[in-house]
Parts: sequence; C-alpha cells; structure tokens
Amino acid sequence: MPLDTASCLAALAEGFPGAALLTGEDVPARNLHDTSFLPDVSPLAVVRPDSPEGVAEAVRICAGHGVPMVAQGGLTGLAGGAHPVAGCVAISLERLNGIEEIDPAAATMTVRAGTPLEVIQKAADEAGFFIPLDLGARGSCQIGGNIGTNAGGNRVIRYGMTREMVLGLEYALPDGTLIDGLNKMLKNNAGYDLKQLFIGSEGTLGIVTRAVLRMHPKPGCVNAALCGLSSYEDVLKLLAAARRGLGPMLSAFEVMWPDYWQVVTEEVGARSPLVGTHAVYVLLEAQGLDEDIDGPRFMSWIEGVFEAGIIADAAISQSLGDVQSFWDVRDACAEFQTVLGPHCAFDIGLPQTRMNDFADACRARLKEDMPEALSVYYGHIGDGNLHIVALDRAQAQPPMKRISAIVYDTVRDFGGTISAEHGIGLLKKPYLSYTRSEKELALMARIKAALDPQGLLNPGKVIDAPATGKTDT
Amino acid sequence: MPLDTASCLAALAEGFPGAALLTGEDVPARNLHDTSFLPDVSPLAVVRPDSPEGVAEAVRICAGHGVPMVAQGGLTGLAGGAHPVAGCVAISLERLNGIEEIDPAAATMTVRAGTPLEVIQKAADEAGFFIPLDLGARGSCQIGGNIGTNAGGNRVIRYGMTREMVLGLEYALPDGTLIDGLNKMLKNNAGYDLKQLFIGSEGTLGIVTRAVLRMHPKPGCVNAALCGLSSYEDVLKLLAAARRGLGPMLSAFEVMWPDYWQVVTEEVGARSPLVGTHAVYVLLEAQGLDEDIDGPRFMSWIEGVFEAGIIADAAISQSLGDVQSFWDVRDACAEFQTVLGPHCAFDIGLPQTRMNDFADACRARLKEDMPEALSVYYGHIGDGNLHIVALDRAQAQPPMKRISAIVYDTVRDFGGTISAEHGIGLLKKPYLSYTRSEKELALMARIKAALDPQGLLNPGKVIDAPATGKTDT
Repeated sequence: MPLDTASCLAALAEGFPGAALLTGEDVPARNLHDTSFLPDVSPLAVVRPDSPEGVAEAVRICAGHGVPMVAQGGLTGLAGGAHPVAGCVAISLERLNGIEEIDPAAATMTVRAGTPLEVIQKAADEAGFFIPLDLGARGSCQIGGNIGTNAGGNRVIRYGMTREMVLGLEYALPDGTLIDGLNKMLKNNAGYDLKQLFIGSEGTLGIVTRAVLRMHPKPGCVNAALCGLSSYEDVLKLLAAARRGLGPMLSAFEVMWPDYWQVVTEEVGARSPLVGTHAVYVLLEAQGLDEDIDGPRFMSWIEGVFEAGIIADAAISQSLGDVQSFWDVRDACAEFQTVLGPHCAFDIGLPQTRMNDFADACRARLKEDMPEALSVYYGHIGDGNLHIVALDRAQAQPPMKRISAIVYDTVRDFGGTISAEHGIGLLKKPYLSYTRSEKELALMARIKAALDPQGLLNPGKVIDAPATGKTDT
Repeated sequence: MPLDTASCLAALAEGFPGAALLTGEDVPARNLHDTSFLPDVSPLAVVRPDSPEGVAEAVRICAGHGVPMVAQGGLTGLAGGAHPVAGCVAISLERLNGIEEIDPAAATMTVRAGTPLEVIQKAADEAGFFIPLDLGARGSCQIGGNIGTNAGGNRVIRYGMTREMVLGLEYALPDGTLIDGLNKMLKNNAGYDLKQLFIGSEGTLGIVTRAVLRMHPKPGCVNAALCGLSSYEDVLKLLAAARRGLGPMLSAFEVMWPDYWQVVTEEVGARSPLVGTHAVYVLLEAQGLDEDIDGPRFMSWIEGVFEAGIIADAAISQSLGDVQSFWDVRDACAEFQTVLGPHCAFDIGLPQTRMNDFADACRARLKEDMPEALSVYYGHIGDGNLHIVALDRAQAQPPMKRISAIVYDTVRDFGGTISAEHGIGLLKKPYLSYTRSEKELALMARIKAALDPQGLLNPGKVIDAPATGKTDT
C-alpha cells in the first residue's frame, strides 16, 4: 500500500467530523509527547473516536492509505510507547471513555480504553469491590495504556500484574478488524488465549478498545509499617518472614535506599515517621479481612520480627491516615522532576538476592564515569523490581545515552531485565537484546510481521518486523 | 517440503539410537491414545529425547522431512490433544524428566517438561514451599502437558490457572528452534511475553521442554467444610460470603449437584459426612496462616453463614484427615469410568449465576432426546467451571456426537465456553465456533500459520491454518 497522506486525511475528515479530528495547529500540545522526555513530534493528525467501531474505522482508513498510527492514552508512559513518530496519525482514546458495566455477580467491570485508572478504582470501591491495580499516575493514566504496557504498580506482590486482572479484551488489529473478546469468565481454555498477545505489546500489535476487568473483594482492613533495617540481608529476611507470616495478606513490600530517603525527606520534604537514619527502609502493607483479628496479628508479627532483630525500628499504622502518610514517603518520587530537574528514570528487574549488590555497583560505575552523578534506588522489591533515578549534577541535561549504557550494562552483568514494568517503547529498544536472546527477538519480529505486515502500528517501537518484510498488503 | 517418511525415520534412528526411538511393534500401547477415548492411532515412531536440545533436534528432523509431530506427556488429557494423528511421529517427553533446580531465594523451581505434577508438588513441600496446581491426574500428568493445556484444577480460585504459575518457559518451535525463556523474575516487561502464546496452545505452536514455576509459601493451616444447601441461590450467597469473609484464604469452592452426590455415595461408595440429602452440596476450603487464629475465624465464619440460613448443614474439618475425607467425595469422580462405564465428559464454563439453570436445561434436553440419559453435574463453581458426565443407560457406548451436540448447544444458549480448563484438542474442535467468533478463529489461524507454516505440529488439533496456506517451506 503506497503512502497516501493527503487522501488519508481527507478520508479521516469525512469519517470523523468536527473535533473528532484535529490537524495542523489544532493538534493539542499534549499529543506531541508522552512522559519519556523525548523531543516533541507533531503527528499529522489526532483522531479521537468515541466508540470501539470508531477506533477500528480510524485504523482501517490509515492502514488503507499506508499511514502509520500511534495509539495514545493518558500519555504517562516513561519509555516512549505513546510518543508520536514522524508522519503518523495519533489515535487518541480519550473520548472512548467510561465504565460500561459493573457486574457484581461475576465481580467484573467492563470499561472503555480511555477511562482513567482512578475513575475505575473509585467505581469499584463504590460498588463494594476493589481494583488492585495502582500506580503513581492513577489520576491521568488510562486503562488502555495500563493494559497495553501490562502495568505493574504497588500491589503486584499480592494481585499480579495488569495481565492477571484482564478477563476479556476488545481490540482493533492493524488492518482495522475489531476483535471482540469481552469474556467475563475466570476460566476459558477454548483455543489460544489471544488477549495475552496484546496485553503488554505496547500498541504495536493492536489497539485496545474495551476490557473486562476482574474485581476483588474490598479488603476489610489495612495495616502498614515503615521499617528501618540495618542491612539488605535483613530486607531479604523480612521479605521471607512477611511471605510466611502474612501470606496472601501481604499487599506491598517497597524498599527505599538511603539515597532515595535523603532526597525525599530533605529535598521533597516528605515527613519521616522514623527517628534517625538506617541502612535501608521498607514500607510493608497487609490487607486483612477483619481489624479485630488481623490488626493484632499484624502487630504481633511485627513484634516478632523486631525481637528477632530483623528490623531496627518501625512506625506502625494506627489508622488509614497513617497508612496514607507512609505511602506519601514512597509516592514522593513523583516530585523528582521538580526537585532534581531533568533526569533518567529506569525500571529494572533483578533477582532479589542481587538487588543491593546491583545498587552498589551501579552507583559506583556512575560515579566513576561522572563524579557528580546522583543516583537513587527504590522500588517494588517484593516483586524483584527496582526503580533508579539518575542524573549528573555537573550537567543541566542528563547524558541519557551515557547513563543508560552504564545502567543497562550493569543490568546485563547481573542477569536482570531492562524493564520490569514500564515497557520498552522507544527508549529501551536499543537495549532489548540485553534481556532477550536473538532467538526471542526473531520470534517477536515474526509475530509483529504476521499481525502487522505493513508495519504501520506504532512503528519503531519495541521490535521491528524483519527487514526482509513482505510486499503483500 | 515434500513428505519423506522413510528418510525421516532413518535420520531419527541416527539421532536417537537404542530405546530413544521406538518404531513398529516396539511402539508402546500407551502411546496409541490419550484419555479422550478416541480410537487408537499408531504413530510412525515414538521418539523419546532426554534433553531440551534432543526435543529440538527431533522436531528439526521431522520438520525437515515434512513429517507431522504430536507431543506426548502423561497422556491424561480428555480432549485428544495428545492423541496421535495418522502418519505422525510422537515426541514423548517422558525421559525429559526431573527437577533441575529449587531456588528458595527466588521461590522458583525449574523443571523438565516430563516431570509428573505430583513429583513437583512433593519436592516443593520438602523444600518448605507450596505448588498450588492440583488436579485428579496429579500422579500421572506431566508439567509440560499442564502448561500446554493451561490446566486449572482445584485451587484456581485462589492461585489462578497454570498460566499464572509459569515465570519462564523453554520450548521448541515447529522448525526446531529452541527458545530459552527460563526467566525467574516475577516481572519482566521487556518486549512481548512470548511464553503466553505457548501456554494453553496444546502443542500446536511449540513443544514445552522446561519451565520455571513460581512457588508459594506453604499454608500454615487448612480448614474445610462440606455443606448441604437448600437451593442454588444459597450457593451464590455462600460464595459471596466466602469471598468477603475468607478473602484470599478461600482456596477451593466446589459444588456438587444431587445426581453427582448420588452416584459417588451410592455407586462409588464415598462416605458422606452429612446426614440426609440436600438440594446442592459445597466443599469449601480455606488455607490460613496460623491454626490458632484462622481455625477459630473459619469456625466463626461458618457459624455466621449457618445462622444466616445460607447453609442447611455442614461437616467441619477437625483435622487434615477430615479435609482429605471431604476431598475424597469430590475426587470420587475418578471412579466414574469403573462404575458408570463409557461416558462423555465435559468441562464447560458459565457465568456463575446461570449454572443451575444450565444444569436443569441440559439434564432436561438430554432426557428428552434419550429417556435413559444419566447426566451428573459438579465442578469448580467458584471459578465458573462446571464438569458434566453424561451417558445413555440404554446404550453400551454413549452416542458421543449426539450428547455433545445437546450439551454444546445448551452452552451456546447460555453464553458459556465449551472448555474452561481441559482444552479443545480434537474432540471439541467442531464446536470451537460456539465460544469464539469467526474473527477470533481467523486470528488464531493466522498465528498458527505464522508459527507453523507447514502445519506439522499437532495437525488437526485446536485450529487449522488457513486453507490458502503458503507454499514456502
């Protein structure tokens, strides 16, 4: 299919009258970038369908004219997955918004892709249920993007990734075919579980239009502790003790290294409930059924790990307000842009036993290369997921490639993954071979070519189809 | 690639000397069928590699000669997924057997595909961990088959399907490429999560050789109750109460209808701990952390649902022996072949609210068509999964097609799935369109064609590649 931009825009204008299509100077500034800090790129147009069929129609028109497409949701992604590419049409899901159904008997919620996560969380809460997916960008990220990136977040240790919360999925294929897989059943082994291919494929294989989410019972009570520990070895002991002593109630296990702690308490101004400093800090949370039973259980468990010398100090929540204030320390990373300025953000996965050695090695290598380097370490260590924020205080703009090379070389040396939850997008694509073998990359490329032979859906992201690409269209 | 059987067998004989290749009369009787009761089919040969590379080599030889292949594990599948097809080479995983590593720090176990599930369960237990996957065939089914079919079983309500237990996967593609995806990390969003495509694809896209399984902490205590209820409406109330009152501790919720109860207590001889008869029976199990806390909690919860009139009677476990004896009633279905003789077995999924109406409708339709029809209903209702065993007592051999047509027509009328956990294999393939749309089937076929362009891996199972298939080999 030869590229035919002008007639593509004309066809889009016909199919999407008025504000459903924005071109030229009408393209909003927000659609020129996601949160990856890549340079702005102007899409040819932003098309804003308000129905699944509209999304499919927009894709069909673009595909029919050989015009590349980039799906856009809340634009909160950090890896460039929703960043426009030159000459593309941005397909924004913002108007395909809202909750279509809450089914209390099936404990499911059917949502449109452009619905913000926080709206979904609140609707579940009002219906007496709980949506465990939660991340800092909850107010602006959209569920379609959460699904497209297989988002992780704060409660993976208990509830799993987004993948495990999606029972059914509707999506448009790269040719505009709309696949309605809005299954509501927990178990459905009737043929290939197609949705798995689209969850986490970052909009390169299809565009999510609607989803059926699994809701969980609302927790009866929540307890949390913010702990100071004397060594990373004690963190591993605490995690093992929490898995055994709190079992499935353990709903978060977040670790913060002293460099993180210092920035958030001294520069962001988060209030530490602990006296003095520690070698490492852990926020742990347990969702119980009944405060009368699980509150004392939590307290007694904490006392046990304290008496065993695993934790040096702990603040223990007495109220939901306390729980929130502990989370404020962990969520203070949202202010890094303000207090630290431009920086590089990483989201790596590692075997839990190697986390601290990794942090030591990475910090040292960065310092060796850039004496003024600042790097801070924190993350969902219960899931083997470490976040790193790094910059060179000697430079106004962080040397992205240099810092990335050092961090990812260290990840490779430690046998980790370059992305635990944020995805690959554009930023991490050059490093994908650090984590995946040549054979795995070839298989990904084969799948991309099979589903998107023209290579029009989010081109240049994650993986390229083989260069020997087909000529059939 | 033209079919070249003789030189394929010669090449296999060279690569797999001695008992690693069985042909002609040496092909064991066990390899002529799985547990689908389809007529025996003799494969050309049974090749029994003892390494992942050996599996890949066997696949490469067969693919190079255009010879179809069927992977075989414990051969306990009920849908024909491992049943030989005419002219195929059976690739048996039985010698690719054993646990390669238990990593307590990562809480993972690396296993070879031919390892029986029960061996895996016991090894986890001895290491102080818990593998939640459990099904009646635990002693003879193999983990590769469990993964290939995305097995469900007794504890899906708490731990999910097999898919949710697999962190890493190694498999041979249809051309013999061995993909090593033995990831041990809980979170790894680096590109497409390729393993998802192979889990549950019933050996039609690749052959599983090794896997990394996630282990869970061993439960601290187990409590169970076998309950008699007055109506199916009460079952739904009990399930809702259990989800809220037992939360993530709820580890099984099994429902048995009176026809099932009658067969297992009167014909199989299972001992009922309940006095009298009830409209429906529920076995529920909760895995807790500490008997001192969770035992009384369970008892108090049961008392609450009894006082609320949700259950009419209940036997409550006082020991692990009691728990086992309750499960014996549920596991008595393993004796159906002995006491009922040849029968048809179904494994369907339905919205939980419609289960009882479905059972009534299906029973009536079978009786209408065959006055001597016997059908019994039971299953993992907490997961929306109903098992049905049906036969016509007027006929020595059950009229498979007639019974299937009635059952699946009813499933379609009720908006269910023709397979919740057993898979599609050969037996259910004619009915796949009852559950999946034409577009979904076309997409499955496209994926099959992309990964297995020659159509040599488990041909005729689950889905066929498009008839317009390519000629490139």
